[in-house]
Amino acid sequence: MDPELIDTLVVKNETKIVFLILDGLGGLPMGGKGQTELEAARTPHLDALAKDSICGLLDPIGYGITPGSGPAHFALFGYDPIKNNVGRGLLSAAGIDLPMTARDLFMRVNFATIDYQGRVTDRRAGRIDNETNRRLCQKLQEQIRLQSGIDVFFETEKEHRALFVLRGDELHEEIEETDPQKTGVPPLPPRPLIREAENTAAAIAELVEKAKEALADEKKANMVLLRGYARYRRFPSISERYSLNPLAIANYPMYRGIARLLGMTVNTGAVTIEDEFAALCQNYNKFDFFFVHIKDTDSRGEDGNFAEKVRIIEKVDSLIPRITELHPDVLVVTGDHSTPAALASHSWHPLPVLLLADTCRPDRVEQFGERDCIHGGLGRMPMVYLMGVALAHAKRLTKFGA
Amino acid sequence: MDPELIDTLVVKNETKIVFLILDGLGGLPMGGKGQTELEAARTPHLDALAKDSICGLLDPIGYGITPGSGPAHFALFGYDPIKNNVGRGLLSAAGIDLPMTARDLFMRVNFATIDYQGRVTDRRAGRIDNETNRRLCQKLQEQIRLQSGIDVFFETEKEHRALFVLRGDELHEEIEETDPQKTGVPPLPPRPLIREAENTAAAIAELVEKAKEALADEKKANMVLLRGYARYRRFPSISERYSLNPLAIANYPMYRGIARLLGMTVNTGAVTIEDEFAALCQNYNKFDFFFVHIKDTDSRGEDGNFAEKVRIIEKVDSLIPRITELHPDVLVVTGDHSTPAALASHSWHPLPVLLLADTCRPDRVEQFGERDCIHGGLGRMPMVYLMGVALAHAKRLTKFGA
Repeated sequence: MDPELIDTLVVKNETKIVFLILDGLGGLPMGGKGQTELEAARTPHLDALAKDSICGLLDPIGYGITPGSGPAHFALFGYDPIKNNVGRGLLSAAGIDLPMTARDLFMRVNFATIDYQGRVTDRRAGRIDNETNRRLCQKLQEQIRLQSGIDVFFETEKEHRALFVLRGDELHEEIEETDPQKTGVPPLPPRPLIREAENTAAAIAELVEKAKEALADEKKANMVLLRGYARYRRFPSISERYSLNPLAIANYPMYRGIARLLGMTVNTGAVTIEDEFAALCQNYNKFDFFFVHIKDTDSRGEDGNFAEKVRIIEKVDSLIPRITELHPDVLVVTGDHSTPAALASHSWHPLPVLLLADTCRPDRVEQFGERDCIHGGLGRMPMVYLMGVALAHAKRLTKFGA
Repeated sequence: MDPELIDTLVVKNETKIVFLILDGLGGLPMGGKGQTELEAARTPHLDALAKDSICGLLDPIGYGITPGSGPAHFALFGYDPIKNNVGRGLLSAAGIDLPMTARDLFMRVNFATIDYQGRVTDRRAGRIDNETNRRLCQKLQEQIRLQSGIDVFFETEKEHRALFVLRGDELHEEIEETDPQKTGVPPLPPRPLIREAENTAAAIAELVEKAKEALADEKKANMVLLRGYARYRRFPSISERYSLNPLAIANYPMYRGIARLLGMTVNTGAVTIEDEFAALCQNYNKFDFFFVHIKDTDSRGEDGNFAEKVRIIEKVDSLIPRITELHPDVLVVTGDHSTPAALASHSWHPLPVLLLADTCRPDRVEQFGERDCIHGGLGRMPMVYLMGVALAHAKRLTKFGA
């Protein structure tokens, strides 16, 4: 089924839908035996929800596929994650509140260290701090003009990471990344991968050369490595597709970026998980779809820190009553993908989901955990269809065919 | 997998397949807790079948999609329900035994009441009886000739519902419905939605005007409202696709209509559920595929009558021995979609299925009910693949590839 079939069936009503997304929720036992992070966590509130809800396991992209955060979130909101795969540069741009135009090409950048022979010695320039990053971006902005007349903007992301933007006509993204992904070798040239990208590649080569000159007197950050090009792309918004008025609550830029790309209103200012739940409560009357994004589960998974991931899950569990007191018509609790601490990275494992609504048909799942969800009534399903199921339970989809 | 892959693998043999379809079988607990209709029903025969068969849950169209009866039945017989979505007018036409031609445009019609200002006061003309309906259709047939030379036929369906047929060249279905779907406003004009439909729209406008004149002296049914246009469309038949010789047994016109569209021989005359089972027994030697359609489960679901839906399921259960005595090679018991009494409408919930054959691999399902079927060996599957599984168990599909 084409995930966009649901768009043709949408009706508007007063129901409210909450998506509570614990990034990287799915896990593994450490050492292959025992419990996953979610199973090990003491989660009385989530277990109570699981009892009353319908559970299952979601595949973000497909069997065996480990998703990046971008495609996983697209799937979560019912956007085909393969057709709509976008470069991380675009996601980063959206995440730092950068006004975008259709003439933009985004590049993710690492400030890096090279030695006197031009070989990369540190791909992260000793993880310079945000302030240094800002100073460097300002310096580049002041000094660099491209011959081609293409505009260029330098934006700080965080630590050693920045975003460069080319703005001009006929820019292309099919260009080789300059980050060699290892030390001891020089950066790669930005070779065009298709003939149409030759002019863009030349502009990027000029940009890299001028950045190198401008940074020559820096001790640590004396080079830039480009590792992700993306053209601007417009997506049909969640409000266009589903007649929803959505609010995104996320304390991490990239997820606000994804939300903006899909036309959500974005809450800013929430720093802690408690802040995020408070923002949900404060804004509950003003919107009808809520994307609440918890980053720390993924971060602790990426750190390989099983105990801390468990602790974050338990903290989120303790805040569940803040949501249930609001009595949303549909509450979904899941993640965007698995990030098992045992692997210290994203993984391909399907991830647990629960969906609570008055119209749920009971299944026999009594606890919210990976191996319980195997037996849930949703079965094992592609994540891209979750949004349709949520809309159905919110009675926001009409009948297909006579 | 393209559902039509199975067509290329079909072989003929002497096996017999019975599809027992309880329309709207899938249900929900009333008030969100407790048992569904099927779980609450005492069904010793179906439970015995479930023990020996393979069970599962079917999605008629896709996750979250509530199907109309047309697409759900297309899926049941292995026809892609989205590609083959047809207007209800065509289904209705097939259901009233109307000989169809490729030049036909079908329109579903409500006789309705309008006031002296032309505003609709009753969209169903006080639900006039069948006899009045027949008298009105005859009157229209005698009085109306269209200037364009397009032929028009007036056919009674039931109560206030009729079917009008335009027969001519280059007729189009892309025309706005005239039923305003509410009272207190006049009927809508039959506006063409594409340029090619202009002539058809003019003929329909003339038809509506002349019908209004002809009905002017009627007290209740003094207007017609059109609400569904459909061009004739030919489908590859079940016998062409699967080399089956199918018989449909259905006591409700629309389902006979679907069966005719797919080239089934249609049994008529069965009124009660017992009649339908008797017709199966009487015709068992003459066919090799049997579609036995039970309407009442859906009707009682639509009424919101949980207890009566339970009673119908129990009645069907009591008649199961009539089928098992025939020892069909493959027996499938399922529905076309869910119609939970709790919702009093079709719904998107997947519905239970059991398939009995000598070649079933055992699963652990011991009772025929929704939450038991979650654990069945068929898993949760798209309904469109059910026909292939049935043909496989009937040993009517050969190997794919060398």
